[in-house]
Amino acid sequence: MRVTVSRKAHFNSAHRLYRKDWSMEQNNTIFGKCNNPNYHGHNYELIASVTGEIDQETGFVIDVKILKDIIKKEIEDAFDHKNLNLDVPEFKDLNPTAENIAVVIHQKIKAKLASNLDLEVTLYETPRNFVTYSG
Amino acid sequence: MRVTVSRKAHFNSAHRLYRKDWSMEQNNTIFGKCNNPNYHGHNYELIASVTGEIDQETGFVIDVKILKDIIKKEIEDAFDHKNLNLDVPEFKDLNPTAENIAVVIHQKIKAKLASNLDLEVTLYETPRNFVTYSG
Amino acid sequence: MRVTVSRKAHFNSAHRLYRKDWSMEQNNTIFGKCNNPNYHGHNYELIASVTGEIDQETGFVIDVKILKDIIKKEIEDAFDHKNLNLDVPEFKDLNPTAENIAVVIHQKIKAKLASNLDLEVTLYETPRNFVTYSG
Amino acid sequence: MRVTVSRKAHFNSAHRLYRKDWSMEQNNTIFGKCNNPNYHGHNYELIASVTGEIDQETGFVIDVKILKDIIKKEIEDAFDHKNLNLDVPEFKDLNPTAENIAVVIHQKIKAKLASNLDLEVTLYETPRNFVTYSG
Amino acid sequence: MRVTVSRKAHFNSAHRLYRKDWSMEQNNTIFGKCNNPNYHGHNYELIASVTGEIDQETGFVIDVKILKDIIKKEIEDAFDHKNLNLDVPEFKDLNPTAENIAVVIHQKIKAKLASNLDLEVTLYETPRNFVTYSG
Amino acid sequence: MRVTVSRKAHFNSAHRLYRKDWSMEQNNTIFGKCNNPNYHGHNYELIASVTGEIDQETGFVIDVKILKDIIKKEIEDAFDHKNLNLDVPEFKDLNPTAENIAVVIHQKIKAKLASNLDLEVTLYETPRNFVTYSG
Repeated sequence: MRVTVSRKAHFNSAHRLYRKDWSMEQNNTIFGKCNNPNYHGHNYELIASVTGEIDQETGFVIDVKILKDIIKKEIEDAFDHKNLNLDVPEFKDLNPTAENIAVVIHQKIKAKLASNLDLEVTLYETPRNFVTYSG
Repeated sequence: MRVTVSRKAHFNSAHRLYRKDWSMEQNNTIFGKCNNPNYHGHNYELIASVTGEIDQETGFVIDVKILKDIIKKEIEDAFDHKNLNLDVPEFKDLNPTAENIAVVIHQKIKAKLASNLDLEVTLYETPRNFVTYSG
Repeated sequence: MRVTVSRKAHFNSAHRLYRKDWSMEQNNTIFGKCNNPNYHGHNYELIASVTGEIDQETGFVIDVKILKDIIKKEIEDAFDHKNLNLDVPEFKDLNPTAENIAVVIHQKIKAKLASNLDLEVTLYETPRNFVTYSG
Repeated sequence: MRVTVSRKAHFNSAHRLYRKDWSMEQNNTIFGKCNNPNYHGHNYELIASVTGEIDQETGFVIDVKILKDIIKKEIEDAFDHKNLNLDVPEFKDLNPTAENIAVVIHQKIKAKLASNLDLEVTLYETPRNFVTYSG
Repeated sequence: MRVTVSRKAHFNSAHRLYRKDWSMEQNNTIFGKCNNPNYHGHNYELIASVTGEIDQETGFVIDVKILKDIIKKEIEDAFDHKNLNLDVPEFKDLNPTAENIAVVIHQKIKAKLASNLDLEVTLYETPRNFVTYSG
Repeated sequence: MRVTVSRKAHFNSAHRLYRKDWSMEQNNTIFGKCNNPNYHGHNYELIASVTGEIDQETGFVIDVKILKDIIKKEIEDAFDHKNLNLDVPEFKDLNPTAENIAVVIHQKIKAKLASNLDLEVTLYETPRNFVTYSG
């Protein structure tokens, strides 16, 4: 019996969408007001969804406390109250779009899970915009 | 790396569930109070979810601004503050159940997307009832 | 110790904002797309908030079950899956704006409460627009 | 055209996570504060999602009223305002983790659906923790 | 300039509504299924709202971190994953209705605030039922 | 009959809490991780609540469309996708705490309302932290 266990978390960050190798004009054309050189920011809401077999002894797929601690250490401690472009190494040369942030989060959490567990990441940039990545 | 990008939108409409070729009694049996001849209405909340590869240049699967504009033109302008049965051509001979509305929305948005993008539509008729259609 | 007890409820209705004694042009100027002659509709979400002293015997200001039943009988049975303009007597000659609907709801619920209880009504026309009336 | 129809419901229950065949110490190690011998509780929020073909006559995959009634009879009447460990036979010898509750709910609802309909159950133990089971 | 600062928190507890000095029959008449002798439970969501003057030096009425820590120590550590009737001294002889819980929470938090700050407590027993107490 | 009409809006901004006339150490002591020199950010959700008499002709206290346009012009256009410290003149020498932002928003919206209308502003910095200011 494969079940998916999901945990919500959140972090508040500044970011700017742009490419260093593009002109300001080109960045404005593609990224619009998201290219503000002084940054803007979001309350990112994260759902990490782990799929696996129910352990018949405990009744857990994964102890949510363990999942919560992985998210705290790997994501919240690294991203919360940070400027994604300036403070987070993964985005030094990677544009922090919601898509790219979700992929980075997926890689960081997946690396800490047992290999028989699948992971899907849903990331809300705003209550109206969100992305999903399953690896 | 295939990622899903989702955008929420909304429209407020009146509708009535019934078949013109059925008697009032038969419509009442199947559609109950949804068959009120004077109509009732809903705040429909829509999630359009577009799946595709991340563009390595922009970091976008689709620019959410473009998706937002498609939804506005194809769905909000056509359905918002309308009577679905009387004002929206697609429902002239199609019962505007949540299922059928979701299929119509899917067809209208899909026609405006690049062919390599997949689309899933989730439509909330109320906060407690919703439908999902993937084409 | 005065405490406020609140209960949420909901009803789905069609309505149209207009005055019968105004021209179509004048109604369009003031009420815009809300004046669609074929109606539009909403999922109205209602919060009825009752304030009074805690009964020292029961620990209740009012049994929420009683409040729920009053709302069901007075509001949901009367408004749900109805056309407010055509099916609800209170709006025969009263424009069903959110403000006016809240006042009518307040009057109907207040009449069923013990006289020592105060009532505030909050009515969400959409998740983004709502009104509050305290009598 | 296969569409998924989802209905939300809820029930409020007490529970305790533990195994009768384990020592208190072992239960505390694995289940932590969820092993409180005096129980704790949750407002469980349930989404039952039924997938099938749209009936071309009615425009329904399943009449939501029927789905609502199945959930009420099978789940709400059985679980609401109950102690899952003591009052619900299915958990007499099954640890009521969110995962196991979701599986039991799936079995109970699936048994009442037409065989050509698929079912997915999502169960929120809290607004931050939830599980999904598709059978 | 008086501003209100609000912080949300939550705790998950079991409880039973009844009076020890009443018969089972009388308790059932007044408290219905809330009188289940085996308890039921809720995810209580709490909003603590503190009103005072903005400190012109910091721009804070109260540092939300301080408010968060008071709530954690006074309420979450005391109530979370507990049986309110059996594990929480304040309810040994006080029926844990939402009203009474809100009053107890108010007293516990107010005692830790500077005397020039006002406090209002809103307690959601479910997403549909909540109470408010201002002292 | 005085009724309150509320409208929700939102803006996404970067900010940093600190005083220019304090040392980095002193700012860290008071503002903690909110003092990140590279900024962090939030999805601010705003509720503007306008109280006045119902106009007996229209049934409106204020046309929500007018309120929406005031919020867009005065707040969203000025704050959205901006760095509050660097891009918004009001915070050049004012620490952009939620309290101070709410006061500034109140002043800007109030100046555009008819003088017989009262205004309350609620500003969510996160879904868990919010402030309210009534002037």
